[in-house]
Amino acid sequence: MLNVVVTDPPRADLAQVDKLAGYGTATVHEAIGRRGYLGPQIRPVQQGARVAGTALTVTCWPGDNLTLHVAAEQAKPGDIVVVTATSPSTDGFFGELIATSLRARGVRGIVMGAGLRDTAELRHMGFPAWTAYVSAQGTVKETPGAVNVPVSIGGVTIRPGDAIVADDDGACAVPRIDVDAAVTAAAARVAKEEATREQLADGALGLDIYGLRAKLGKVEYITAAEYARRSGETP
Amino acid sequence: MLNVVVTDPPRADLAQVDKLAGYGTATVHEAIGRRGYLGPQIRPVQQGARVAGTALTVTCWPGDNLTLHVAAEQAKPGDIVVVTATSPSTDGFFGELIATSLRARGVRGIVMGAGLRDTAELRHMGFPAWTAYVSAQGTVKETPGAVNVPVSIGGVTIRPGDAIVADDDGACAVPRIDVDAAVTAAAARVAKEEATREQLADGALGLDIYGLRAKLGKVEYITAAEYARRSGETP
Amino acid sequence: MLNVVVTDPPRADLAQVDKLAGYGTATVHEAIGRRGYLGPQIRPVQQGARVAGTALTVTCWPGDNLTLHVAAEQAKPGDIVVVTATSPSTDGFFGELIATSLRARGVRGIVMGAGLRDTAELRHMGFPAWTAYVSAQGTVKETPGAVNVPVSIGGVTIRPGDAIVADDDGACAVPRIDVDAAVTAAAARVAKEEATREQLADGALGLDIYGLRAKLGKVEYITAAEYARRSGETP
Amino acid sequence: MLNVVVTDPPRADLAQVDKLAGYGTATVHEAIGRRGYLGPQIRPVQQGARVAGTALTVTCWPGDNLTLHVAAEQAKPGDIVVVTATSPSTDGFFGELIATSLRARGVRGIVMGAGLRDTAELRHMGFPAWTAYVSAQGTVKETPGAVNVPVSIGGVTIRPGDAIVADDDGACAVPRIDVDAAVTAAAARVAKEEATREQLADGALGLDIYGLRAKLGKVEYITAAEYARRSGETP
Amino acid sequence: MLNVVVTDPPRADLAQVDKLAGYGTATVHEAIGRRGYLGPQIRPVQQGARVAGTALTVTCWPGDNLTLHVAAEQAKPGDIVVVTATSPSTDGFFGELIATSLRARGVRGIVMGAGLRDTAELRHMGFPAWTAYVSAQGTVKETPGAVNVPVSIGGVTIRPGDAIVADDDGACAVPRIDVDAAVTAAAARVAKEEATREQLADGALGLDIYGLRAKLGKVEYITAAEYARRSGETP
Amino acid sequence: MLNVVVTDPPRADLAQVDKLAGYGTATVHEAIGRRGYLGPQIRPVQQGARVAGTALTVTCWPGDNLTLHVAAEQAKPGDIVVVTATSPSTDGFFGELIATSLRARGVRGIVMGAGLRDTAELRHMGFPAWTAYVSAQGTVKETPGAVNVPVSIGGVTIRPGDAIVADDDGACAVPRIDVDAAVTAAAARVAKEEATREQLADGALGLDIYGLRAKLGKVEYITAAEYARRSGETP
Repeated sequence: MLNVVVTDPPRADLAQVDKLAGYGTATVHEAIGRRGYLGPQIRPVQQGARVAGTALTVTCWPGDNLTLHVAAEQAKPGDIVVVTATSPSTDGFFGELIATSLRARGVRGIVMGAGLRDTAELRHMGFPAWTAYVSAQGTVKETPGAVNVPVSIGGVTIRPGDAIVADDDGACAVPRIDVDAAVTAAAARVAKEEATREQLADGALGLDIYGLRAKLGKVEYITAAEYARRSGETP
Repeated sequence: MLNVVVTDPPRADLAQVDKLAGYGTATVHEAIGRRGYLGPQIRPVQQGARVAGTALTVTCWPGDNLTLHVAAEQAKPGDIVVVTATSPSTDGFFGELIATSLRARGVRGIVMGAGLRDTAELRHMGFPAWTAYVSAQGTVKETPGAVNVPVSIGGVTIRPGDAIVADDDGACAVPRIDVDAAVTAAAARVAKEEATREQLADGALGLDIYGLRAKLGKVEYITAAEYARRSGETP
Repeated sequence: MLNVVVTDPPRADLAQVDKLAGYGTATVHEAIGRRGYLGPQIRPVQQGARVAGTALTVTCWPGDNLTLHVAAEQAKPGDIVVVTATSPSTDGFFGELIATSLRARGVRGIVMGAGLRDTAELRHMGFPAWTAYVSAQGTVKETPGAVNVPVSIGGVTIRPGDAIVADDDGACAVPRIDVDAAVTAAAARVAKEEATREQLADGALGLDIYGLRAKLGKVEYITAAEYARRSGETP
Repeated sequence: MLNVVVTDPPRADLAQVDKLAGYGTATVHEAIGRRGYLGPQIRPVQQGARVAGTALTVTCWPGDNLTLHVAAEQAKPGDIVVVTATSPSTDGFFGELIATSLRARGVRGIVMGAGLRDTAELRHMGFPAWTAYVSAQGTVKETPGAVNVPVSIGGVTIRPGDAIVADDDGACAVPRIDVDAAVTAAAARVAKEEATREQLADGALGLDIYGLRAKLGKVEYITAAEYARRSGETP
Repeated sequence: MLNVVVTDPPRADLAQVDKLAGYGTATVHEAIGRRGYLGPQIRPVQQGARVAGTALTVTCWPGDNLTLHVAAEQAKPGDIVVVTATSPSTDGFFGELIATSLRARGVRGIVMGAGLRDTAELRHMGFPAWTAYVSAQGTVKETPGAVNVPVSIGGVTIRPGDAIVADDDGACAVPRIDVDAAVTAAAARVAKEEATREQLADGALGLDIYGLRAKLGKVEYITAAEYARRSGETP
Repeated sequence: MLNVVVTDPPRADLAQVDKLAGYGTATVHEAIGRRGYLGPQIRPVQQGARVAGTALTVTCWPGDNLTLHVAAEQAKPGDIVVVTATSPSTDGFFGELIATSLRARGVRGIVMGAGLRDTAELRHMGFPAWTAYVSAQGTVKETPGAVNVPVSIGGVTIRPGDAIVADDDGACAVPRIDVDAAVTAAAARVAKEEATREQLADGALGLDIYGLRAKLGKVEYITAAEYARRSGETP
């Protein structure tokens, strides 16, 4: 739905969202059943940032960032702005001026499904950003899209108020209704991984720890000589 | 036109070009009417460099860097070498040896429309480079192309002697005839942005500063409940 | 050949492989006749690492890292794990837990033809990694592939036990049988380049050092005025 | 949400959906406010087909078509199967055997967000298909995903029971709640376009028909000579 | 230069341009010194069309086809409309309505550097089109670009009035000043190829016809046994 | 290994290879254990061709087809020429003249890992071709590569004399040593599929035919109402 601004979307509880930031994208994505990852095309502009917040969703027209200005007015502290375009667009929809505006309103970062610019300035400001493209190409401000309606990036639908977690591995969306469960599951996963890590560091094998040998039924362990005999080539 | 080397292309005035370096790619691109950006595929090899210079243009055959050696002889202090291939090529046309040669002749950097290598060495030398691909794959030196004839990268035609500005956002070409106007417009833009930045930092909205509300004619501000009613889904 | 694990592939001599690490990807690739580069899509997760080791090859199914766990058991000190999938897959097959396991067994790094995750953790651990994609998307552990059979990345066939060299320019494979020759040729190349570098730094031209002028037979050196006359445009 | 099969999603009224087939992708997409187009990566396997139906949505794991078999059981006459994978996958998830099964259950076609195979056989059967990739690479049948939960292709969220229209220009999704309005608007649009077409065929200009001249405020009409003076180049 | 419409660009002589149509893209590209090919991303919408005309160049903003309507007024019989956008855009800028308008004014076809739609209708009309993308996604009509200023597609600069040749292999631009030479050279090339074709059909080798054996200096002809000895693998 | 021409590679038995042509790419790929598919980037130039032959492998330099002329001399009746370049190259390495030459020597088709041209002529001649790119861009003839050494396309290593099967779904390589087994397995697979096809046409489900229900352990069948309750959204 275009040409609407939803003014009061329910947002995930920020106290719970904050807990997700500590776990990072991969852990949170696993914790909710291997869902929500926005895909490898969304890359961080900086290195080492890890943030979480509530999604303020924005749909722009390609090469037109008017709607981003509309969105700024809807921002609340704790939000992460999530932007997409109605068709693929590499242009620089976002830069340090809008970042200044968003920061003034308490926004914690941006996940850009199109392009952004002023990457040096964004790093200097410490405003964390993830993006599909870096491009200095400017946009017009002509045609409105929508604010706080569901958007889709990397095959994942993101609703306003969903939790967003982003770090060096990219960004992940957690449906608002699943945030509490995600916090619990992420904590459990981290605890379990800590135990596994110690075993692995001591030389134990994932094959045994995870009980995977049963899945190797068809696999044959053969010598290089046997491989050469079967394939007609040296391995 | 291939198989020609133009020996005396007029170059933009270096004193004016130097002024552009201070403004960066996005500002300069805006200052000349949102033109000249070489596209998001041209990425910096290093972080934090910002340079400007006059274009020494090079057309190579794919996988063949002979013409880059021809170009070195035509280099003048203040030049930035701008390379393209007659068809897409990811190979490493350029590395630290040619960089050593270009630096000895006063060249300030390279914008590579194909691929380059020795990125660690280039960073160590402090020779700034922007490129479409990083690749260790070597090239032959067999077929000449052209030096100092117009080339095209990212849909932008670059003529020898045009100004090139490059930073973390990529690279931008300014036609020689437009350099003076670009310097003036960039200065004005920066001044204006500084004022805007302060307003935005104080919480003013781009919607108001830029007078954008008039463009929102069709847009409706609705509640989440209204959205649910219209779309059949919760927002 | 799938569903096999070759348990005793011959490996290149590690003492010789270690010598290759000092030369880097571009030099080694040139030293073996401009072969073996795994292509520009394989990018480092960290900056400044340069390693060499013997290939432990892994073929996974897309979105399924079971075989990586099988491979861990076959690892020997000095190995670099080289992973490919039977079809393109951006998923995160590898992260810090498996890295912990591989490190415990003496593995020096990973070259991932699909995707990996936990990039911040891998940098923190100092476990060097090269990959086609960074993705937090998890994989299943269901279908076995093959370990230590030939794989192919970027048009290059890599056999178990081949030498792998990787740095900021990407990764290169050296056939086991060619490692000794590669060490010798790389040393010779570096010595020759050092001499060339000094000449270039002193202002000599590649055109003369490499004897390239003879290849410019068809090339004309013309003035800008002559170019304008022929092309109907100013240069 | 994974690991669920929704057994009774409400479907758009098939009589109304049938009317959409006559209008084609571009007209329907325009009729609902320029939304719903699944993007240029979804291409037809055949030429000249134009179909509409109700979406039976399927989420598979990459390289694993188990869920497509689950979906077949849920198919109803008039459905178009819409498939996506949890991460990008080019594999051939679908071929003529599953097409035979789907056809037996009244399915009208498939829109594949991953890959499919047996394209010659599909054309021979007359089973229309649209896909992101053609690939003979087979899949496993190991890990279940979900059936009849929302999926996303090309930035568009598709819900089970939504209307799908597909033709040589690709595929478009119409939310179930908007189908009646789409039928009405498409009819109006076609009527209007017919009038416009006649005017254009008679030589009238879109500039006048659509009243666009008012938007050309900044545009100057200049001669080639004037262009040359301003740009320093002949046009 | 944006926001200008050049009203009287000189056009290549149509009688000469017509002669180029007979030769096709590959031959014409070779005839002008292996230049002018617009790249493999520009694909025909139909099969079997071969046309030539004079370029009417159009620069649009991404997702905005206002300028295409401006261009229609500048069209002259014999023109081929060549469209690019200021940044990459897959949207459907062009369809059968504008085609109707352009045909009414004598335009022979379109080369679209962005996207177009209504491909079935265009084939039915017999209006030949080449494009980078097929997309039903609509555009706005808000921001003017430029008409009849140089554009660039696939690294080739196209000026208004240049000759365009397009067929199943894509599209090629011939600078206006080079059209006469192109006609002559293409005719000579075709005559020469006819002779070569007969020799090749009789079993002669290109190695001999083109005198290529001298370039094989480093090549060794070896047996499979010798290959196995050197490489350590059977060939 | 470059700069070698292997003159007598063993070739798969042509009588057996001929049998594979009847089965097509997907069936043969399955018959050898889901291996050998050259990937979705290799597309047919024509529609409806299905051929098999023995691989004559060619490694070219990017933008240089000299080695294709070398290869023509090595061709034997029944061969399919398989070409790759040492780095990605979209250029037109192959066209109707070389096709004429190859046909005169009994070659059955070409699989091009780079680009080719003259597609209309190739279709007219009936010389079947598969390619990664169509491009009219010409190549030089300067630097030799290798003939009849292993090449790699789409992650698959192809050895000279391996069987190649190609059709509308792309191309597949069968190792020479596996051809007999492939013929047997393909026949068995086709027979089994015929039975399955009848069952599916009669309305039986793959879930039952393939015994897949056991793999659905975690899957829940729920109503739309239940889905809405759990997800907070209507399905």
